[in-house]
Amino acid sequence: MDSPAPAPTVTPTGTRSSAAPVAVSLGDPAGIAPELIAEAWLQRRAAGLSPFFAVGGALTLGMAAASRGHTLPVRQIERPAQALEIFEEALPVLGEADCAPQFGAPDEAGARLALHSLTEATDLARTGAAGAVVTGPIAKARLATVGFAHPGQTEFLAEACALGPDDAVMMLAGPNLRTVPLTVHEPLARVPGLITPELITHKARIVARALVRDFGLVAPRIAITGLNPHAGEDGRMGEEEIRIIAPAIAQLQAEGLAVTGPHPADALFAAHERSGYDVALCMYHDQALIPIKTLDFDAGVNVTLGLPIIRTSPDHGTAFGIAGRNIASPGAMIAALRMAGECAARRAAGLLP
Amino acid sequence: MDSPAPAPTVTPTGTRSSAAPVAVSLGDPAGIAPELIAEAWLQRRAAGLSPFFAVGGALTLGMAAASRGHTLPVRQIERPAQALEIFEEALPVLGEADCAPQFGAPDEAGARLALHSLTEATDLARTGAAGAVVTGPIAKARLATVGFAHPGQTEFLAEACALGPDDAVMMLAGPNLRTVPLTVHEPLARVPGLITPELITHKARIVARALVRDFGLVAPRIAITGLNPHAGEDGRMGEEEIRIIAPAIAQLQAEGLAVTGPHPADALFAAHERSGYDVALCMYHDQALIPIKTLDFDAGVNVTLGLPIIRTSPDHGTAFGIAGRNIASPGAMIAALRMAGECAARRAAGLLP
Repeated sequence: MDSPAPAPTVTPTGTRSSAAPVAVSLGDPAGIAPELIAEAWLQRRAAGLSPFFAVGGALTLGMAAASRGHTLPVRQIERPAQALEIFEEALPVLGEADCAPQFGAPDEAGARLALHSLTEATDLARTGAAGAVVTGPIAKARLATVGFAHPGQTEFLAEACALGPDDAVMMLAGPNLRTVPLTVHEPLARVPGLITPELITHKARIVARALVRDFGLVAPRIAITGLNPHAGEDGRMGEEEIRIIAPAIAQLQAEGLAVTGPHPADALFAAHERSGYDVALCMYHDQALIPIKTLDFDAGVNVTLGLPIIRTSPDHGTAFGIAGRNIASPGAMIAALRMAGECAARRAAGLLP
Repeated sequence: MDSPAPAPTVTPTGTRSSAAPVAVSLGDPAGIAPELIAEAWLQRRAAGLSPFFAVGGALTLGMAAASRGHTLPVRQIERPAQALEIFEEALPVLGEADCAPQFGAPDEAGARLALHSLTEATDLARTGAAGAVVTGPIAKARLATVGFAHPGQTEFLAEACALGPDDAVMMLAGPNLRTVPLTVHEPLARVPGLITPELITHKARIVARALVRDFGLVAPRIAITGLNPHAGEDGRMGEEEIRIIAPAIAQLQAEGLAVTGPHPADALFAAHERSGYDVALCMYHDQALIPIKTLDFDAGVNVTLGLPIIRTSPDHGTAFGIAGRNIASPGAMIAALRMAGECAARRAAGLLP
């Protein structure tokens, strides 16, 4: 694989205070999100987190912190901007919505709180009162019982921003790797039929724009995988590379984007290959998520690209089985909050279009 | 995932001398295999390698060593057993077959030598004169020009042992992980149609037997992946887990095998999960090879399970582009030779049936 010099990045310095604070939705209050939000606030200085606030859940967050042996100072706020002033002394909580969860035992009151928190946090980001939104994990089946009709939070956010589902692109980002699955929650048998040159070019353009605007890369390098073993080996193990993926890559290159491929996916994530690209655009869920979780299990961030707002999320679920037991690692929540703050600072600084 | 205590292993001690030496086929002589065989011999003591010999290629191996700045002592032998006596002083080479390769530029004479070396080495293992065979990488398209009609070396070996292609099971083994792809060089679109309960149980039984006999595990723990994202999430993202994979697992469990799954493949290879199983049986090529190559790129060994002979291979290709340039890492070749010697010693010691 080509290994050009790493893409230069533009780092916002001294601009954090100009960004609006990050809004965090609670996720399902019976899951691990509340304890991880509390833990992240307690580690805010060592982790270098910019100011954030939770939407609702003052009691929930206090109980979650107590389950880990901490006393959490919580301060109610009425406007997001107040978070900037009090973040050093207390975890700011916007609004009175709350419940008294039994950790590990989700219920309808918790589902209502989760949906309220997600909706409010998204609205605040859309209006600019929040610089970004970090979403705690929900249990989709539980939220469906209180009226949530979307396959997941990403689709909810796309609709809230008046975009179609293909306009919101999931990127997984860890300390060692960024990947994007072209298709996401599809049965494997459907994947080959869903891959088109248009879908590849559409999502690659969104990824390229977002890495410039929100991640400060000047000319992001995108490695695109093949669908088949050995990227089809010149058509001997499948033809999608020749018919669909290579033409899409040629089109993107003609537009001036730094795109390579189709690469055999099995070798693309080895250490010596990873320095050759900034993001890998993969054809399906496991192709993108296996390498990220194998390398960076406790620090993976799910970022939604292509939205007018900045949205990140820790790449794990509600984990009801370990909620309230002081087991869950806050690594991914901290990484999601840090990334949201950094992206918000870049947009606020307006260094790049 | 369940994480029972690691399976106990039976280690053959003081039994190496009873095993026949390991036969190494040269692979394509214009590729990197000859220089890596030479390098492995030079590092034989530090790497703890048991005696091996090359089949043909005395001049080829000398030239390959010279390309890395080494003078390689080579000794011609007439019977494999002689390798045991002279291995400490020189690299034993059985037979006169040879060529004078131009590294990086494969030709027909080289293809003939590769095919001869593979055929002879396999025969020696079948008769027991060699304790195992390690195969250097070939270029299939080039060998086809001199009459090699198999999709790859594994299929050649299966036929040489009078077995069907589904009876020879590819396992990838690295320092951190072992995986088996249920289907291998198939276009992704064909994969869902190829997965049957019979194929899963057939290959899982072969894997379990081989891990007992050749790897010394007393009760190998096999983790089986799902085919779809999140292992189908109870049928919402595909039904193969419910219709095909779960029944196969139930059958294997009923036979007393330590099998779990279907596991979501994306999370199965994280560090804290890997301690819970001895091998992951995956549904297709990239699902099995991405985690191995992401973790263990330079030390992956391809082992063929289910044969009456022991066969390993370094998990890389001919790499014509870097052959003869002192760039290629010998890690995988050394690991393949070490594993072949260890498996041969276990069989020779007859500690387990």
